[in-house]
Amino acid sequence: MDLFTPSVQHWLDLAGIFVFAISGALLAVRKNFDVIGMAVLAEATALGGGLIRDVLIGAVPPAALTDLGYLLTPLVATALVCFLHPQVERINRAVMVFDAAGLGLFCVTGTVKAHAYGLGPVASVAMGLATAAGGGVLRDVLANEVPSLLRWDREIYAVPALVGATAVALLIHTGLLDAVTSALSAALAFGLRLLALRYNLRAPRAWHRRSGSTDQGAAEA
Amino acid sequence: MDLFTPSVQHWLDLAGIFVFAISGALLAVRKNFDVIGMAVLAEATALGGGLIRDVLIGAVPPAALTDLGYLLTPLVATALVCFLHPQVERINRAVMVFDAAGLGLFCVTGTVKAHAYGLGPVASVAMGLATAAGGGVLRDVLANEVPSLLRWDREIYAVPALVGATAVALLIHTGLLDAVTSALSAALAFGLRLLALRYNLRAPRAWHRRSGSTDQGAAEA
Amino acid sequence: MDLFTPSVQHWLDLAGIFVFAISGALLAVRKNFDVIGMAVLAEATALGGGLIRDVLIGAVPPAALTDLGYLLTPLVATALVCFLHPQVERINRAVMVFDAAGLGLFCVTGTVKAHAYGLGPVASVAMGLATAAGGGVLRDVLANEVPSLLRWDREIYAVPALVGATAVALLIHTGLLDAVTSALSAALAFGLRLLALRYNLRAPRAWHRRSGSTDQGAAEA
Repeated sequence: MDLFTPSVQHWLDLAGIFVFAISGALLAVRKNFDVIGMAVLAEATALGGGLIRDVLIGAVPPAALTDLGYLLTPLVATALVCFLHPQVERINRAVMVFDAAGLGLFCVTGTVKAHAYGLGPVASVAMGLATAAGGGVLRDVLANEVPSLLRWDREIYAVPALVGATAVALLIHTGLLDAVTSALSAALAFGLRLLALRYNLRAPRAWHRRSGSTDQGAAEA
Repeated sequence: MDLFTPSVQHWLDLAGIFVFAISGALLAVRKNFDVIGMAVLAEATALGGGLIRDVLIGAVPPAALTDLGYLLTPLVATALVCFLHPQVERINRAVMVFDAAGLGLFCVTGTVKAHAYGLGPVASVAMGLATAAGGGVLRDVLANEVPSLLRWDREIYAVPALVGATAVALLIHTGLLDAVTSALSAALAFGLRLLALRYNLRAPRAWHRRSGSTDQGAAEA
Repeated sequence: MDLFTPSVQHWLDLAGIFVFAISGALLAVRKNFDVIGMAVLAEATALGGGLIRDVLIGAVPPAALTDLGYLLTPLVATALVCFLHPQVERINRAVMVFDAAGLGLFCVTGTVKAHAYGLGPVASVAMGLATAAGGGVLRDVLANEVPSLLRWDREIYAVPALVGATAVALLIHTGLLDAVTSALSAALAFGLRLLALRYNLRAPRAWHRRSGSTDQGAAEA
């Protein structure tokens, strides 16, 4: 199912891929990787979530390998970051906003695609989260960093994606999913992520943490 | 093939998933992750081995995405660890025993499923090992730790799984696999793992290690 | 398509798998892993690239699980490294040459197989790179190291693979691919990698790096 007209959907996908790729290439610069490392990390961040979803639901070869635009867009992002990364870093706040838009878009399209391949609502929501957040996890694992998604000292990322994906699953279940309601679901996830960034919203940790794990003194084990 | 009656098999699977999820959630607490990190690590540990096997043998969508109980059980384990992790840590020895039971169960079911999808005996044994140990490796990779499975200073984990899986492969080859013999194979792996824990059995390392890698002074490179 | 007669192709594949497995087992020794860790890392390095490619293009179960030689060859390499690793380390330069040969071979066979499964030229080149370099990335991720492929202070590895894979894609497009031209493509990648090793060729990094990232003082962030 296309949420919008096919060409609008396609341009939105490419825009989401582009901003995710920017975040991968920027991490590569911070880690002092070479341009190959930048391109690999940009591709993995941008396409990783969709690849994981497509492999799990049996949609092979994945869209990322059959659509030339999907493969080439991260290379454009890599070139941009390669030559202009101080400027890109300076507009990091704007990059975060676009990344939140990608999050909103992909949690919706991922859930819809998983449903189209026959998965139930809970599994579809899980695939929506995997589409939105899987690329970032792959980026961090490849760069040998603790995934942002898991860290308590990062603004919530999974929760907005889960809310957006759950909204879509409910809309599918009630037969109300159309271009408008799916756009609203994406906007809901987008807005929650922006609120999380603005107000530093974080997820709680387990109760009764040992004294060494206070908010002030916490370091990774 | 179901080793036991379908419902017994299903409850055993859920029990194995539950204890694996506990180990993932506990590592997340030790790493100071938030509740999202706990849930992600619990899901990855509990379902990761089966997901890897199912993707490799072509059983998509994997059982983990079509059975609601598989997806939700790790969340129950996460909630338990979230509120009661000091108590869960205190019974860590009991958790290790249940984990050994999960190891025994999954090396058997993984080997049987791989055989059912047409793989040969050696590949089926490899898939039995992947089912039993893959989730733990995924847990450690996501948490940015050296996988327990690879470390010399951990009690053997792969060997009991390999023995159990090999026993199943031989039983299949000789036509002797049934509920009793497969339960015995699982018990064999379970027992070996308990012996390894009790007597600190470790696998050897390469010969002629450089002087810096003595048993006393060894640190990871 | 077989590039050569089937049996020649098969022996070349096994030789490539063997040398990749050596590099995995050697890293395990350096990381002080036990023999299980050596075998797991040898298997992952040798078969990982092909597994990733086969899962993505839908060729399941992958060749690595249906051909007994593919599964057992890394164990032979593990045994060799286990007993003779000081000697193997001493001929490390020779191992690097064989690894370069594996790189040349696998970038060609990976591209050809991806094309045979219906992928376009750019995606096929990406799969050629994944086949040649994916195992090494998996090895480094499992060992909790920053992947060599991404590091600026390593001789280029991806570029020779990309050149070889691109040559194959062009040959397919022009209908000129046969045993001779594919062997020449593999030799081209092999030769470029040897040149890179001989003259310490490295890929550039992003422009305008911050002062802390000079060539002299660079450390990973």
